[in-house]
Amino acid sequence: MNQTAPLTGVTAPQGFLASGVHAGIKASGNRDVALVVNTGPTELRASAAVFTSNRVAAAPVHLSRAHFAAGTVSAVVLNSGGANACTGEQGARDAQQMADHVAQALSLADSMQVGVCSTGLIGELLPMEAVISGIDMAVGELADTPEAGANAADAIRTTDTVNKTIEIHADGYTVGGMAKGAGMLAPALATMLCVLTTDAVVDQRELDAALREAVRTTFNRVDSDGCRSTNDTVIALASGASGHHADAQELTEHLRSACATLARQLIADAEGATHDIDITVRGAHSEEAAEIIARAVARSNLLKAAIFGNDPNWGRVLSEIGTIPEEVAPFDPDAIDVSFNGVQVCQAGGVGQSRDLVDMTDRQVNIEVDLHNGSASATVITSDLTYDYVHENSAYSS
Amino acid sequence: MNQTAPLTGVTAPQGFLASGVHAGIKASGNRDVALVVNTGPTELRASAAVFTSNRVAAAPVHLSRAHFAAGTVSAVVLNSGGANACTGEQGARDAQQMADHVAQALSLADSMQVGVCSTGLIGELLPMEAVISGIDMAVGELADTPEAGANAADAIRTTDTVNKTIEIHADGYTVGGMAKGAGMLAPALATMLCVLTTDAVVDQRELDAALREAVRTTFNRVDSDGCRSTNDTVIALASGASGHHADAQELTEHLRSACATLARQLIADAEGATHDIDITVRGAHSEEAAEIIARAVARSNLLKAAIFGNDPNWGRVLSEIGTIPEEVAPFDPDAIDVSFNGVQVCQAGGVGQSRDLVDMTDRQVNIEVDLHNGSASATVITSDLTYDYVHENSAYSS
Repeated sequence: MNQTAPLTGVTAPQGFLASGVHAGIKASGNRDVALVVNTGPTELRASAAVFTSNRVAAAPVHLSRAHFAAGTVSAVVLNSGGANACTGEQGARDAQQMADHVAQALSLADSMQVGVCSTGLIGELLPMEAVISGIDMAVGELADTPEAGANAADAIRTTDTVNKTIEIHADGYTVGGMAKGAGMLAPALATMLCVLTTDAVVDQRELDAALREAVRTTFNRVDSDGCRSTNDTVIALASGASGHHADAQELTEHLRSACATLARQLIADAEGATHDIDITVRGAHSEEAAEIIARAVARSNLLKAAIFGNDPNWGRVLSEIGTIPEEVAPFDPDAIDVSFNGVQVCQAGGVGQSRDLVDMTDRQVNIEVDLHNGSASATVITSDLTYDYVHENSAYSS
Repeated sequence: MNQTAPLTGVTAPQGFLASGVHAGIKASGNRDVALVVNTGPTELRASAAVFTSNRVAAAPVHLSRAHFAAGTVSAVVLNSGGANACTGEQGARDAQQMADHVAQALSLADSMQVGVCSTGLIGELLPMEAVISGIDMAVGELADTPEAGANAADAIRTTDTVNKTIEIHADGYTVGGMAKGAGMLAPALATMLCVLTTDAVVDQRELDAALREAVRTTFNRVDSDGCRSTNDTVIALASGASGHHADAQELTEHLRSACATLARQLIADAEGATHDIDITVRGAHSEEAAEIIARAVARSNLLKAAIFGNDPNWGRVLSEIGTIPEEVAPFDPDAIDVSFNGVQVCQAGGVGQSRDLVDMTDRQVNIEVDLHNGSASATVITSDLTYDYVHENSAYSS
């Protein structure tokens, strides 16, 4: 397996067409409608998706959830410039119209074969005239070229400053993908969309299991809340066009690798961030406990601001760990070690090596916590809290 | 009952001495050691305290918890300039030495009669020579004057820009108090200390119950985490010096009022804040559910940054509410109303009145959520996320 550059994304595997066009939804005039179409042999196509756990889910999430549950989805339409969330019955009709129009334009038997994703501002109706003409344009520009994949990745960007794509060449088949998402410091409203494609032959059930496992330890461990925006969606489409039957475990690893790389790209592009932060908790009695603690640390504004100031403030780590109830994680506070970039600044719950030894000039910061309470571990990745984060999230509605 | 200005704080009731001195713990040279001494009739003195629920509790918290549990505490020594948290056995010995030295200097029979509070940077030992000479100075300056109360309030400040004091004249007795705390946006490490005094006659058990109830709906609803720093402590001392037996319910209300006013003072002085925000959740099936939802909303960096930008971004409220599991609060997302400063921008989970109608020029912002799922309610108060918050928490260790 190797990752080639430049990355073409969803069109890297065989059996996929894609496009990304300017429909005029965004005031900026940037691309805002994308299509991904599975053209593999009908009987070999498979699809799977995971959605936000947020109870306030957008209209396209409700629709796509039903479509993926009902059978195989062969085409996905995505728009930026509007989330179609908190838009009531009209929003539901609009999402349905998007699916209907794509099905008609692609001559699909049923609009249930279409998935819909939207991202942008909540609480505003989509400009449906622009969306529909955008879908027509996108159908007209469908291609299997690297450019087509790049255009699709471009069309789903909101505050993203770069395209996020991945391409993994496995033995006998390929995995491709694109994602969007930038405001990952507190993703309660920072929509993360991802479409993965593969030309492996895999059945629906195996693809679904592989996708869930891949997401669990990657996108769900980006930042603090995991995927809780109103619109978060991760989709996998398999075309079977390579003719290669993928080993389930191997495919899971490749999807995990694709998701992990895309997750890193999201964090690296987090709004206003100057540091990417890995928070690894070891020595826990369970992986779940390790993850809960790492998430709690990742949510501390005080810690995130300290890291922006290149301050290895371990007290803010320990204090956050202390908020976890004993029934969740039965550690001894006086046994905890904490290191920043390899320097053990906190030893056995107290002062360890000098803070002055910690070098925080790199963008990457690694915080390691050892609870000395077991052998399980988990890593959550986040970024620092900066002036630019406040600026991007206060200067305009998003 | 009325609140007089200027507020003298802990020396307002009869039977209390206080002082605040420059001991040299703080590099700034500001006051850093305070004493509050109960001089009421020995048999009428009562004391109560509530402490942080953080499992990583500071040495003075461990010591004070034991002293308040064992009997009546008659004197409290407080220092700023160092939290004495995560300081191991030496930290425990230092807290003990502070109690011992105060007991000796005041000729108390037992150092168990002394409470100790510390605030400042975590993970550094206190400069005990300065602390001990500071205690000697503080004993020498003990007085029952307004100035003495003000000096004590001044000596417990860290990033606080003003003294926080309260004085309530009830029928037959008086309640006074002082507090410190400023970094309340994410108080995982923003220590909140408070000492309340009263000359009412009240027994230990009633005072304890009154204090717990007062704190529950005030300090514990400031911001998001409630009192979870390593050092948070709220103390009540009763001298009995007025000779007036307080009605338990009335005393509870006065303590609640004192705590509520001090809590407002903390929020108004929150690091870098430009808006105070009340988040009220109504129509919940239980007060607990209402509080959990209000806290979740209060934790949203995206919402806090939007409010800094004077943007009534109700989508960020709804999205946060949606993260609460159904078993905690069985509301219907499509029934939720949200108003900003009286303008119902979200109606039945969708678009309501125009955002443009919302006036956000005042410092105070009121967000009201109606779940239409019951009759319980709760209010959590917080503040906005600003450039100055990031600056204050990144530019130096605290």
